[in-house]
Amino acid sequence: ALTWEPLPQLLFLGRWGLICAAVGLLVGSASAFFLLALDYVTAWREAHPTVIWLLPAGGFVVGASYHYWGQQVVGGNNLLLEEIHSPQRVVPLRMAPLVLFGTLATHLFGGSAGREGTAVQLGGTLADQLTRVLGWRPRDRKILLIAGISAGFASVFGTPLAGALFGLEVFLIGAIRYEAIGPSFLAAILADLVTRAWGVGHSAYPQLETGGPITLQPLLLTVGCGVLFGLMARSFSALTHQISRWFALISYPPLRPALGGLLVALAVAALGTTKYSGLGIPTIMGAFQAPLPPQDFVLKLALTALTLGCGFKGGEVTPLFFIGATLGSALAVVLPLPVALLAAMGFVAVFAGAANTPLACTFMGLELFGSQAGIYLGLACVVAYLFSGHTGIYGAQVVGQAKH
Amino acid sequence: ALTWEPLPQLLFLGRWGLICAAVGLLVGSASAFFLLALDYVTAWREAHPTVIWLLPAGGFVVGASYHYWGQQVVGGNNLLLEEIHSPQRVVPLRMAPLVLFGTLATHLFGGSAGREGTAVQLGGTLADQLTRVLGWRPRDRKILLIAGISAGFASVFGTPLAGALFGLEVFLIGAIRYEAIGPSFLAAILADLVTRAWGVGHSAYPQLETGGPITLQPLLLTVGCGVLFGLMARSFSALTHQISRWFALISYPPLRPALGGLLVALAVAALGTTKYSGLGIPTIMGAFQAPLPPQDFVLKLALTALTLGCGFKGGEVTPLFFIGATLGSALAVVLPLPVALLAAMGFVAVFAGAANTPLACTFMGLELFGSQAGIYLGLACVVAYLFSGHTGIYGAQVVGQAKH
Repeated sequence: ALTWEPLPQLLFLGRWGLICAAVGLLVGSASAFFLLALDYVTAWREAHPTVIWLLPAGGFVVGASYHYWGQQVVGGNNLLLEEIHSPQRVVPLRMAPLVLFGTLATHLFGGSAGREGTAVQLGGTLADQLTRVLGWRPRDRKILLIAGISAGFASVFGTPLAGALFGLEVFLIGAIRYEAIGPSFLAAILADLVTRAWGVGHSAYPQLETGGPITLQPLLLTVGCGVLFGLMARSFSALTHQISRWFALISYPPLRPALGGLLVALAVAALGTTKYSGLGIPTIMGAFQAPLPPQDFVLKLALTALTLGCGFKGGEVTPLFFIGATLGSALAVVLPLPVALLAAMGFVAVFAGAANTPLACTFMGLELFGSQAGIYLGLACVVAYLFSGHTGIYGAQVVGQAKH
Repeated sequence: ALTWEPLPQLLFLGRWGLICAAVGLLVGSASAFFLLALDYVTAWREAHPTVIWLLPAGGFVVGASYHYWGQQVVGGNNLLLEEIHSPQRVVPLRMAPLVLFGTLATHLFGGSAGREGTAVQLGGTLADQLTRVLGWRPRDRKILLIAGISAGFASVFGTPLAGALFGLEVFLIGAIRYEAIGPSFLAAILADLVTRAWGVGHSAYPQLETGGPITLQPLLLTVGCGVLFGLMARSFSALTHQISRWFALISYPPLRPALGGLLVALAVAALGTTKYSGLGIPTIMGAFQAPLPPQDFVLKLALTALTLGCGFKGGEVTPLFFIGATLGSALAVVLPLPVALLAAMGFVAVFAGAANTPLACTFMGLELFGSQAGIYLGLACVVAYLFSGHTGIYGAQVVGQAKH
């Protein structure tokens, strides 16, 4: 079986090329629609800040929609990872509208959440529907799910290489297997192309310039920052899981996001700012310009853990970008490194630790911030990965290789 | 064992930080010396082209040195990979001077060879000597060998991220395990820093600019080129192994490179050019400027397979860069893609296929050519990897995950 057979490989590539074109078209279009809708609800929320008082009601509706129609799909990202590990049945199509609706509601009313969960679930669900048509072997279905996840991640962030690696890296902690490497690259690149072809753009981050030779001191500081980023990732995961367990004490599920929404609304009102609601892109951008105060990452951490832990939708990644970038930015007050470099390292490394995906995040760093500061970004991601523990934001990850 | 323990992880990082500092210092310095010596012998050879007639004598000396003093280390890179898979004993220190001397002789007299084999063997051997001092468990020794390989590769090419990934990726086909991810990143980055601190620079390649939106046509062409690059990688491996088997029919090993050297010398004299001797950096650079004729990659393939198959030293990688870049460059005559992009794709993708290291080569592409054309470089590497078969240039690789 291990002899060289270009013909089967060509057939494999041709078949998966067509399938990935379909996945890219579906998922890239879904991401484009999602991103446009997200922009719209974000703008509307910022124009109507008092809508935050409807967050409890929005939470009830989101909770009720999953309770009455979505119990099979409430696992979200974890359901996809479980299907990769031990295939049971095709992911129900309703996961797509439920997560889309739940995420838009979360953002419209001012919860603190992200968008990668939505994109990944749209990607995985839509890709998996092809299984119904094509009726494949378990291994093909596994590849299809990975390709869908890659496509969703790539298209929502505009980072195709990071998306390809994310799909390959996310279901195992500490290991990658290349069985899906071709489809995941193809699906990620094509989905990103489709989203851009719909005219949907992505935030443009500063291109880092290191200028001058590498020296030892910034590398040592990078390792130290990586440890902090990893511990921050660990804290985020632990807090979100803990809050989730507390809310599980409420026996009627729709009440969980209703109560959580009330707490978030009270916090936002008490703080008197909407900067911690939604994605928080303006604050992320600001983190690269000048040092931000520590309360930014502390409050974002608390509000996101509360929003997601009680049952709102969207995902953890953009809040993790926010937390990492503002933590890095805050460190610029005490560390002799450029604020943009620290913000960029935090941006990718906290997420690398929380999702246990150091290579995807290193690629993301190169794609978003250019290749010049690559070693700092890569080192920060790897160290954060080592210090984030064996349980990240995705409970269904399986340990492929222990960290120590 | 899978609970969260920051303290053991800090101790792990501190211990390996010190070890990787030692590895980086040793290997980075060795690479600096090697690169300077290589520059010197290359310049001398170009100034004295008739030295090619001494190649048979040089071959005899290289062959004799391994036959009488180096039978334990003649496996070269493969010996290192075997020790990673099933540790037997510390790699003999003599591997370092033998491969250094053999490589310099190969280049001085005009053989067609590379330098990564030398750097990787210097790295692995020097790092492994620390085992004698520290007396470790097999797992620590495996990490140490990987870190040494990463350090050698990173410092000889000036590409720390690619070096880190190369060490992690090279011993298994189709899989990565992260047990050495921290040490390999640290050793690669530090070794590169040390080589540069010695004032040794690296070739600067053009930074690719894609300009404008991604479209489908160049992606399809990239996939097609990737198939060609993979088949070229496969041809290179197959030809080198076949020539090696033919020369093994000569029972007295030192005569093999003597005869091979004579054949190479006759070919070089008949061609009337030294452009296929040594590393061939000027031709690689030229490949980015304008399309080169097909004989460039054909002749380099033949002369390198002959040089290495008969027993000269140095490694395959820079010749693979040459073959890939000139093949890509030649394709610019028939394909509507920029010549620099085609040359860059061939540069990284033929090597990705031959060494079965698609992620290391994608990182190398981003490090050498900038991140703008990342998806083309990454896609070409992945497709070439899929089409290069299950036996690459390193016979001791173990299949971790079949390609189809």
